[in-house]
Formats: sequence, C-alpha cells, structure tokens
Amino acid sequence: MSDLLQYMSEVSADVDRTLEGLIPKGPSAKLYDAVRWSVFAGGKRFRPVLVYATGEVFGAGRESMANTASALEMIHTYSLIHDDLPAMDDDDLRRGRATCHVEFDEATAILAGDVLQSLAFEAVCGDLRLEASVRIFVLAEIAEAARRMVDGQHLDLDAEGLPTTIDALETIHRNKTGAMIRASARCGAMIGGAEAEELEAVTKFASSLGLLFQITDDILDVTASTEDLGKTAGKDLTSEKATYPSFYGLDRSRELASKVHADATSALAQIPRDTSRLIEIADFILSRKS
Amino acid sequence: MSDLLQYMSEVSADVDRTLEGLIPKGPSAKLYDAVRWSVFAGGKRFRPVLVYATGEVFGAGRESMANTASALEMIHTYSLIHDDLPAMDDDDLRRGRATCHVEFDEATAILAGDVLQSLAFEAVCGDLRLEASVRIFVLAEIAEAARRMVDGQHLDLDAEGLPTTIDALETIHRNKTGAMIRASARCGAMIGGAEAEELEAVTKFASSLGLLFQITDDILDVTASTEDLGKTAGKDLTSEKATYPSFYGLDRSRELASKVHADATSALAQIPRDTSRLIEIADFILSRKS
Repeated sequence: MSDLLQYMSEVSADVDRTLEGLIPKGPSAKLYDAVRWSVFAGGKRFRPVLVYATGEVFGAGRESMANTASALEMIHTYSLIHDDLPAMDDDDLRRGRATCHVEFDEATAILAGDVLQSLAFEAVCGDLRLEASVRIFVLAEIAEAARRMVDGQHLDLDAEGLPTTIDALETIHRNKTGAMIRASARCGAMIGGAEAEELEAVTKFASSLGLLFQITDDILDVTASTEDLGKTAGKDLTSEKATYPSFYGLDRSRELASKVHADATSALAQIPRDTSRLIEIADFILSRKS
Repeated sequence: MSDLLQYMSEVSADVDRTLEGLIPKGPSAKLYDAVRWSVFAGGKRFRPVLVYATGEVFGAGRESMANTASALEMIHTYSLIHDDLPAMDDDDLRRGRATCHVEFDEATAILAGDVLQSLAFEAVCGDLRLEASVRIFVLAEIAEAARRMVDGQHLDLDAEGLPTTIDALETIHRNKTGAMIRASARCGAMIGGAEAEELEAVTKFASSLGLLFQITDDILDVTASTEDLGKTAGKDLTSEKATYPSFYGLDRSRELASKVHADATSALAQIPRDTSRLIEIADFILSRKS
C-alpha cells in the first residue's frame, strides 16, 4: 500500500470512530439505521482526508480536526442521499450497494439527509477542543459550502437536457462539489492556525483541486465501468448532463485536468511549509481510477 | 387589534425584512423563488415572536435577535416544505396556498428545504452583533432542535396507523414541535443575558408552551375548518395519526390544555421580571382558533 493510501486509511478509521460517536441510536432507531447505512457505505472520505492533510501542514493535531472532518463528511453524505432520490437523480446504486431510499424508504431517506445536516453543525458546536472563534469560522465555512452545494445541485438539475456553456458548467461545479472541497481545506488550515496569506494559498489550491476532482469525475463516468465506480457508469451521458468530455471531448478534458493540477500545485508553492501530502493528493486525483 | 396581535405583527414585519436580506437571489433563481414562496407564505412567525418576547423580558434589543429569530423560522419553514412532500404527508395546501412541490417541482422543494437549513446556520454565524459565545449557544440550540424535530417527524411517520401510547405521543411532540419552541425561547433568553436559573425557568415555560401548542393544534384539526386553518383540516383523522383527541377525546384534551397552560405560567412566576408578554402568548395559544 502506498504511503498516501495508508494515510487515507488511517484518516478513514479515525473519522469512522468519530462518526460512530456522533450519530445517535434513537429515539427513532430506523432513522439512524438509515443514517449509518449511508454514512458507513465505504466512501473514500476525501473531504476528511483533505481536512487532516491540510491541517497537518500547519501543525493541527488529529483530535482537533476529527469533528470538523466528520461534519463535512456528514454534509457530503446527506447530499448523496438526497441526490439519489427518485425526484432527483433517481439512482438505485451508490458505492456498490442499494441507495438509502431503496434500502429503507423515501420518507426515511429524506429525513436521514435532513438530520445529517443538523448533526454536522451539532458536531462542531459541541467540539470544546476548538476555541469559540475557530468553531464559528468552521461553522460558517460549512454552512456556506452546504448552501452552495445545493445551489450547484439545483443548477445541475435545471441544466439537464438543455444546451449550456462551459461557464455555466463551471459555475455548477464550483458550487456543487467545489465549495465543500474548498471548505474542507480551509477548515483544516484554520484549525492549524494558518496565517492569512497561507489561508489564501490554501483556498487557491483547494479551488483548483475541486475543479480537478470534477473533471476527472466526468472523465471516469465515460471511461470507467460501473463495477469500478460502485455507482452507475455512463449515467451523465444517458441523462444528457453537461460534462467536461461532452464539451471538450476526452483528450482535451485530460489536458485540462493536467493544467488544473499544475494550478493546484503552484498554489502550494506559496506556502513555506511541507506540503508534500497535499501534492500527493493532487497527483492521486489526477490519476484516479474510481 | 389587541396589543399582542399588534406585537406579533411588528415582529413579523421585522423578521420578514431580515429574511428578505438573508435569502439570496441566485445563482439558481428558481431555487430561491421556491424558498421565498414558502418563507413568505403568511406564516404566523410564532417562533420569532417567542424569541423576541422572551429576549425582551431580559432586555435584549430587537436588532440583536433578528437573525436568530429568522434562522429558527427558516428551519421551521424547511421542515414544512419537506413534511408536505409526496413521500411524507403528501399535502397540496399549506397556509392557504399550493405547497412548494406543487407550485414548483419535487426536486426543487427538496433542495429548497435543504438550502434553508444551511441558510439558517449561515445567518447566525454571520451575525456580528452577537458575541462569539452567544452565537455558539444559539447555533448549538438550533442544531439540536433541528435534529430533534426530524427525530419527531420520523417517529410520527412510523407511528401512523399503528396503535401507540400516550408516552409515545408525547415523545413525538416533545421532539417534533417542542424542541424548536424550546430553542426559540432559550435563544431569546440567552441573547438577553438571562441568569442560569432564569434560563431554566424559561426552558420549563417553553416546554409546557410547546406541549400546549401541540394539544391545541390537534384539537383544531378536529374542530376547525380547512378555511380557518389554511391547511387541510381533519388530516390527522383520515391518516389515522395519533393525536390528543384520539387518545383522550375532545373534552379531556381541553382540560389537559388548561393544565399545561397553568404549568407554563407558573414557570414564569419564578422569573423576577415582567413576563406579561409571555403570559399573553400562552393565553393566546390556549384560546387560538387557527
């Protein structure tokens, strides 16, 4: 196992333990069974990894980031549960198993998503390891990113089947996936006590990383199998969604991915610390197969 | 117009102005049209009124409560939007007009609810008129209440058509409506700088008030017309929901309402301040017609 995969696996274990402690068992057992079904579905924990890796650049301890990272993962998971609903993307399969509304029922899936959003904010509010000012920063970052994620999802739904522009596509992604990735890195940096200029460089890095993530996601939707992805491949194509390959074709999309990867790493060069883990993450996303 | 109705109308106007400023116009115009459709549907603003009235007992200025009150109203509105969805209560009519998913579409209604929850937390995080420690208190109260509201909604859905106990019914309501009412009063008190024992008395008052609210809501569902309610009357009966009248009958439900009203006002007696506005509110709920 490479060093980065080892690191990701450690972060996942840490965040899984934290999530286990943050998610209640009741009063409605079925509701929280549904929450756990989706939270512990074997996700890559990319947002928590980014919180930890960025925070560690600035010397943050893992225990000070566990709740924040878990909160971001809860917001991400709630968005997946709602995106999969029949009225939205109508997907039966996610991370290789039944989606929440298929395994439970639609009402439970709606409420499981709703409660995950509340739990995310509760997790940060109650994290006494963080100073009040840092907690407020983190809460504000998560709230803004969660709002922008929904903005992006709605723009995306509205755009389906319609001609659109590359600018419109980028607006969708900057909001839908970009905002949460940006928030993850910024929260890690803030918990670690990054200086203002460092926070700015982290923001640039994470904005490029988010775009890279989306471009490679779109490429994988065309090139990877359903088995590799653990979700229905080719879904964007059949639903006529605007994607990077549909605008640029595969080759130019890959070139764009390389360019955006270079933007990400050059932003890191402005931080006078050891950012090798963040570079590894950017490399990993550029070359990912799922 | 009675003094209380005048007061409620002033609070509503203040909160409406605040909400207008807090809700964005885009990037997805349709999403925020749907948000505004539901937020400005002529609700009674009961939670904001409770924030203001409780805060003013302790000397809080209105401008210091506007965002908190608006945030609680946003959480309440998001819950109505989601509760009305086809997979949940499947209601077409709310406050005398089409529900969000009927006026727009189901996906937009799901996302409008989702984004309202994020906006609520954003509104408090960004409220620089409140000290950081007060903001964290308010955020934690709202997050916990929002979580418990969903708990209650899921318990309620699960209980439909099934025999249940009066304890189970109270657990549903303490969570579904009680937690948000409790949080509204507690946030007002905290912004006003209430002492610990005063906060405890406010909590007792608000717990009884929440229960009173639910008992009278159940009674009205049986006795009031759809026109008076602005939502489908008799809905609990046709969906075989557990209610106070279904357990106790109408007469004993009314007796219980009087008893709970007395609990609320005697809790207020422990606060050495002018609580007349809160007593008026309890009286108003006991005798409300819609």
